[in-house]
Amino acid sequence: MTRVEGRRRQSGRPSQGGVPQRPFGQVERRIDWMRVLSDDQVEAIHHAALRVLARQGMRVLHAPARALYSAAGAEVEGDTVRLDPALVMERLATAPPSFTLEARDPAKSLRVGGGHCVYASVGGPAYVMCNDRGRRDGTFAEMCDYLRLVQALNVLHQEGGGPFEPLDLPANTRHLDIYHAQIRHLDKSWQTQTLGHARTMDGIEMAAIMLGITPDGLRDRPVLLGIINTNSPLQLDVPMAEGLIALAGHGQVNVITPFTLAGAMAPVTLAGALVLQHAEAMAGIVLTQIVRPGVPVMYGGFTSNVDMRSGAPAFGTPEYAKAAQASGQLARHIGVPFRSSNVTAANEVDAQAAYESQMSLWGALTGGAHLLEHAAGWMHGGLTASFEKLILDAEMLQMMDAWFDPLPTTEADFALDAILEAGAGGHFFGTAHTMARYEHAFHAPMLSNWDNYPNWLQRGSIDARRRANTVWKELLAQSGDPPLDAGIDEALCAYVARRKAEGGAPMN
Amino acid sequence: MTRVEGRRRQSGRPSQGGVPQRPFGQVERRIDWMRVLSDDQVEAIHHAALRVLARQGMRVLHAPARALYSAAGAEVEGDTVRLDPALVMERLATAPPSFTLEARDPAKSLRVGGGHCVYASVGGPAYVMCNDRGRRDGTFAEMCDYLRLVQALNVLHQEGGGPFEPLDLPANTRHLDIYHAQIRHLDKSWQTQTLGHARTMDGIEMAAIMLGITPDGLRDRPVLLGIINTNSPLQLDVPMAEGLIALAGHGQVNVITPFTLAGAMAPVTLAGALVLQHAEAMAGIVLTQIVRPGVPVMYGGFTSNVDMRSGAPAFGTPEYAKAAQASGQLARHIGVPFRSSNVTAANEVDAQAAYESQMSLWGALTGGAHLLEHAAGWMHGGLTASFEKLILDAEMLQMMDAWFDPLPTTEADFALDAILEAGAGGHFFGTAHTMARYEHAFHAPMLSNWDNYPNWLQRGSIDARRRANTVWKELLAQSGDPPLDAGIDEALCAYVARRKAEGGAPMN
Repeated sequence: MTRVEGRRRQSGRPSQGGVPQRPFGQVERRIDWMRVLSDDQVEAIHHAALRVLARQGMRVLHAPARALYSAAGAEVEGDTVRLDPALVMERLATAPPSFTLEARDPAKSLRVGGGHCVYASVGGPAYVMCNDRGRRDGTFAEMCDYLRLVQALNVLHQEGGGPFEPLDLPANTRHLDIYHAQIRHLDKSWQTQTLGHARTMDGIEMAAIMLGITPDGLRDRPVLLGIINTNSPLQLDVPMAEGLIALAGHGQVNVITPFTLAGAMAPVTLAGALVLQHAEAMAGIVLTQIVRPGVPVMYGGFTSNVDMRSGAPAFGTPEYAKAAQASGQLARHIGVPFRSSNVTAANEVDAQAAYESQMSLWGALTGGAHLLEHAAGWMHGGLTASFEKLILDAEMLQMMDAWFDPLPTTEADFALDAILEAGAGGHFFGTAHTMARYEHAFHAPMLSNWDNYPNWLQRGSIDARRRANTVWKELLAQSGDPPLDAGIDEALCAYVARRKAEGGAPMN
Repeated sequence: MTRVEGRRRQSGRPSQGGVPQRPFGQVERRIDWMRVLSDDQVEAIHHAALRVLARQGMRVLHAPARALYSAAGAEVEGDTVRLDPALVMERLATAPPSFTLEARDPAKSLRVGGGHCVYASVGGPAYVMCNDRGRRDGTFAEMCDYLRLVQALNVLHQEGGGPFEPLDLPANTRHLDIYHAQIRHLDKSWQTQTLGHARTMDGIEMAAIMLGITPDGLRDRPVLLGIINTNSPLQLDVPMAEGLIALAGHGQVNVITPFTLAGAMAPVTLAGALVLQHAEAMAGIVLTQIVRPGVPVMYGGFTSNVDMRSGAPAFGTPEYAKAAQASGQLARHIGVPFRSSNVTAANEVDAQAAYESQMSLWGALTGGAHLLEHAAGWMHGGLTASFEKLILDAEMLQMMDAWFDPLPTTEADFALDAILEAGAGGHFFGTAHTMARYEHAFHAPMLSNWDNYPNWLQRGSIDARRRANTVWKELLAQSGDPPLDAGIDEALCAYVARRKAEGGAPMN
């Protein structure tokens, strides 16, 4: 295989810009996943979802997708596709339980499945926000800065498909500039857009150029991952079906994510919302396996609830955390890697943003998520990408990774000599055991401040929200784009120019 | 048994002061506790701790305590008490795995052990803090307000031993006024102080008066719980030993909590800090069982780490969460209920306060804690009780309880009729299934704001820290003291007056 030359190996680098960081890399989690459902309950939800697919079915608005379902043995009546349980289970069986996702820098390729999870930065918001200028429409220049920060933050394994809309660019060709920026500013894995055939194919073409191969050459090399949202309840629209088919057909990874907001697009009970989520996820996963048996695919769990007084969506709620863990169980039940998210409805980078995100993180990561979408930067229920939230989340992700680090218990770790050396009522600062280990003994925070209160006051009473502002500016000031082969970049420029001349993607 | 008359049954009351609350009550947790150690690792730490107690031993500064150990078969040499493994295991065996803790209102009595956990408000800080007036020395009047809030917050099961020092009262008799206030303002369980014989006995005497019985009558009725900190490493001082012996002798609950800060009073490795914690906790638990075999006692895990650059203690770190879960495993290994805490080193009620507390909460509660000490209000590494943090924590505790609520999966919960009724692409707001359930379907927050961003701006951009200020003032304005029998209160007044005349407790 041809590989891009001239890449710098960056993994293992401990920090950048004076901001303490763990090195780039996935922590293999060795815990028992947290279970909120019994095996019987998992089985019952699974069977209820199969009943929904067999009796009520999915409305599939894309005729070629209906034809694919039909050819595979599904019953198609008008727009409705009904799947019998045997067909579903037969097709689910070809989805792989784990896979590798290639990055521009091979040292940053990712494991998806088993104990490994991918942390992906926020994708899709309409707005951008920072302390200095509040919330606003985003520009391409600011979006590139955001990508530079995603590259600079070691704890982020993947870019999430464009952090916010660069509204200074035309809508029909914007995706081309975003893809180009993702390749230029990142040597990490990045997500593609999936809204319609043209945008998806542009992602595939440009990823192939990035690797110096043809789109055909990608078919057995997963490098792109894209989010497919069903239109809950029980509907798959044309752009999403086109994206799904294009990605699966080229051996790339669909993340089938029903948007099952309990009380709105899903039943008001968590169990009901999970039945609907499971039905829609299975229907999408089945379609990927019809398109290309064995293609990697993920089960997306996004079940949350609304505020029943106002209808406003809520995120990072207790229901959200529980649904994430239940979704992990359902995904494992059908043997497909599981995607969850780090979400909040908070309006400011305050205590609420932190506790809702923490609820999401613990739900997702103890629930066995293999992709943590929107892992850093998401605010306002997904409408806004925040520069400060990016840092807050990066800190919380580093903490989760440190928590996942194993707890070694060798005789040396027990420190019986140090306990003897310190003596009753003594202290351990100066023991040989401490001196040999203190530098790397504990998680070193990038955001937390542990000053005592008088010092904190004297240093300006700077809270976490304001400290995050300083951190991202430091990181950005010292960031640099990873080297990119000049020939590759020329080929990307030529592709983008040609596609712009052709008019880009049709407007949906 | 005599019981205080005239109490109002308050449990089950859904809210107070317009602030949404769950009813008073303990949620029985039905999850598998999260394990960060293998069984072999637990066994290895346990045996290393036994070796420490057998070879190095504890320095016990209180002669009567040494005499008790000696009479039970321990080897005493100077101040040092060495315990052989057989003696330790024999004494641990009499500690009960669970017990009931009586409250002034019997409906608020508490289960300790198994799936049940007690959430206790912050205890012990030197300072008080609120948004309006910053951090300051506390007064008795403010402390009583804080107690009223602890009473008003249904999610708090127990008061934690005095939220902060009322510095307008003399140090030698202050504890008497605190106990009296705890009884007057709370019909919930409250913790006693344990610093020396006199303070502990005053708590016991006043708790007996509260129940209309004598101290002797308490011996088989656990009603008081007190925290005993060993002076890590490996030391038990005179006031703590006196408190321990007085409580255990009267059938009350000691919570033996070594203060094993890794890198300072404990080895820099988590495993080493846990060995030390386990050794000291076992030594204390053994002493309670020597004093009174079968008396309820708890295993306190407080292992955290310091910032190795500054020596400052850190709380709510990844190491803290992992140590909490490991401590739960160690406590279960010896069959003693487990105490953990909700802690942070943050200086403001900001994102850091929330994420450090969340790390503590998930560590403690998934680690199987049976007492969550400092569950609400703690700031500044324990130096300060905050009015706003009290509300933030109450919200997070309510969320954890809602997360612990089971996820029912009856056929009605699956909502297949509603899924049919809504139809593909429809919505669930108006389905019969939703209408019948929407009012109580989801956790109703007391602090979270789910406005969309334009509304939030229009309503004043009020962040979580400022909203918490409004919430506690609303709760306080509408709070009322629970009825207390006039004869009981007179007897308490007389006791306090007599003890003040006697000079209160000697100053340590």
